Amino acid sequence: MSIEVRSVTKKFGDTTALDHVSLTFGENQIYGLLGNNGAGKSTLLSILSDRQCPTDGSVLVDGEPVSNNDHALQKLFLVGDQNLFPDDMKVKKAFAAAQLFHPEFDRAYAESLAQKFDLKINKKITSLSTGYASIFRLVLGLSINTPYLIFDEPVLGLDAQHRDLFYRLLMEKYAEHPCTIIISTHLIAEVASLIEHTVIIRAGKILKDCPAEELMTAAYSVSGPAALLDSYLQGHHVLSSNTLGGLKTACIQGVPEVSLPAGLEISKVNLQDYFISLMEEKDKQ
Amino acid sequence: MSIEVRSVTKKFGDTTALDHVSLTFGENQIYGLLGNNGAGKSTLLSILSDRQCPTDGSVLVDGEPVSNNDHALQKLFLVGDQNLFPDDMKVKKAFAAAQLFHPEFDRAYAESLAQKFDLKINKKITSLSTGYASIFRLVLGLSINTPYLIFDEPVLGLDAQHRDLFYRLLMEKYAEHPCTIIISTHLIAEVASLIEHTVIIRAGKILKDCPAEELMTAAYSVSGPAALLDSYLQGHHVLSSNTLGGLKTACIQGVPEVSLPAGLEISKVNLQDYFISLMEEKDKQ
Repeated sequence: MSIEVRSVTKKFGDTTALDHVSLTFGENQIYGLLGNNGAGKSTLLSILSDRQCPTDGSVLVDGEPVSNNDHALQKLFLVGDQNLFPDDMKVKKAFAAAQLFHPEFDRAYAESLAQKFDLKINKKITSLSTGYASIFRLVLGLSINTPYLIFDEPVLGLDAQHRDLFYRLLMEKYAEHPCTIIISTHLIAEVASLIEHTVIIRAGKILKDCPAEELMTAAYSVSGPAALLDSYLQGHHVLSSNTLGGLKTACIQGVPEVSLPAGLEISKVNLQDYFISLMEEKDKQ
Repeated sequence: MSIEVRSVTKKFGDTTALDHVSLTFGENQIYGLLGNNGAGKSTLLSILSDRQCPTDGSVLVDGEPVSNNDHALQKLFLVGDQNLFPDDMKVKKAFAAAQLFHPEFDRAYAESLAQKFDLKINKKITSLSTGYASIFRLVLGLSINTPYLIFDEPVLGLDAQHRDLFYRLLMEKYAEHPCTIIISTHLIAEVASLIEHTVIIRAGKILKDCPAEELMTAAYSVSGPAALLDSYLQGHHVLSSNTLGGLKTACIQGVPEVSLPAGLEISKVNLQDYFISLMEEKDKQ
């Protein structure tokens, strides 16, 4: 049971958005798909769900190609930024329509979530604010009960309280009905504790594809007076560094020594900071 | 030297967006303006900068009313989500235009920032993606050198690397040219270390207006087996609690006891979690 991406390339004119991407999304795991704007995340996700065709390569869901294949496509649901319902449809009606396409859609649960988020189900979808349009799509996704659930930038425009509610509901859902979840987001720090496997994509290529905990311990941070730190950095693999006033901080690939020169302070690097450092290193190459 | 908000009320039909709001933004400090969607943050900021008129009350900049007062308005700049330049204007031209309105605008610096963010200055403003439209406005704000600089949701749509760059540039700017900065954002955790003073607004009213460090120590978090925690919570001021499986976590107002019952674990509450807990408590009232 898996989604298999087999050497997928996608070109838009002269631009290569995805360059021979191969990946497997296994059963009942939470994946974080991380990458900067323009890296190819949304293109990949829309190819997974057959909303776009690859220029080359293929995607298989449980061994079946997704291309024009309703049986395979019924197993996955993409929560993207597009409204797929008619313009004048109300939220309540959209829930009913979702049930037609996805028989496992839990309408009573969707209505209970709408209440938790204070989403007005008698409103037209197109009249919702940016935040509530996101919430409408999240509620759909959380209620749909497909084996593969894909969220593309799910919390854009949501305030901290609603983001927190979404993360909690997602974990509840995952605990009660295990499934494969793929989350693509710029708010890396907020999903770091949820994701089990991390895929980092840069300029259309896969840069990392490994268990999340592997990245958590892949680097460390050291800070101190600039001159002192500079001499320590010799012979280390420095991903990125910043100086403010006379104080410098560096992110270093690898495992720190047991003891550091006096005056330098060591700290853990969280997933978001590691991601940023990795991107900065690549930009310099 | 300050922006003074004097009992400002703003009504839209039957809806009261701001309800007798009084506040002072003092000299050379960084303020965080926090609140959920619909709380009144953007309305307040657009009244500060005279883009909207209050229904009642007034705003003074260094003692002068801002209403229709170019002299007062020249001292502040609002980085909001609107494009204030003609539709066919290119980024480069907009920098030149900004210099006409704000003589202190540093055009060479703006162009150097554009390069750092990889913002193409020969593009039309209206052709920029959501992320780059935000970046264009950030670059303007960082280069304008007014005594009061206001950012309304500045990093919407930016990836983690660009958000990190913005925060670093903002701190550099603040260190070199101290000014009053007001940041309104939903990404509270990311600005927590930058802001010196916090204003929390809810349903058009000011809920908190105090130094950031006061909020950092206003509450603590305890987690452990649900039954054990429930008995500890008796007689405590519980802001919010969550249960996942048999494990419960609660956010408690106040200072923790020196020693807690065995089996319970205590931790600090960061500003974003405190904010969420506070909102949840108010929702229940």
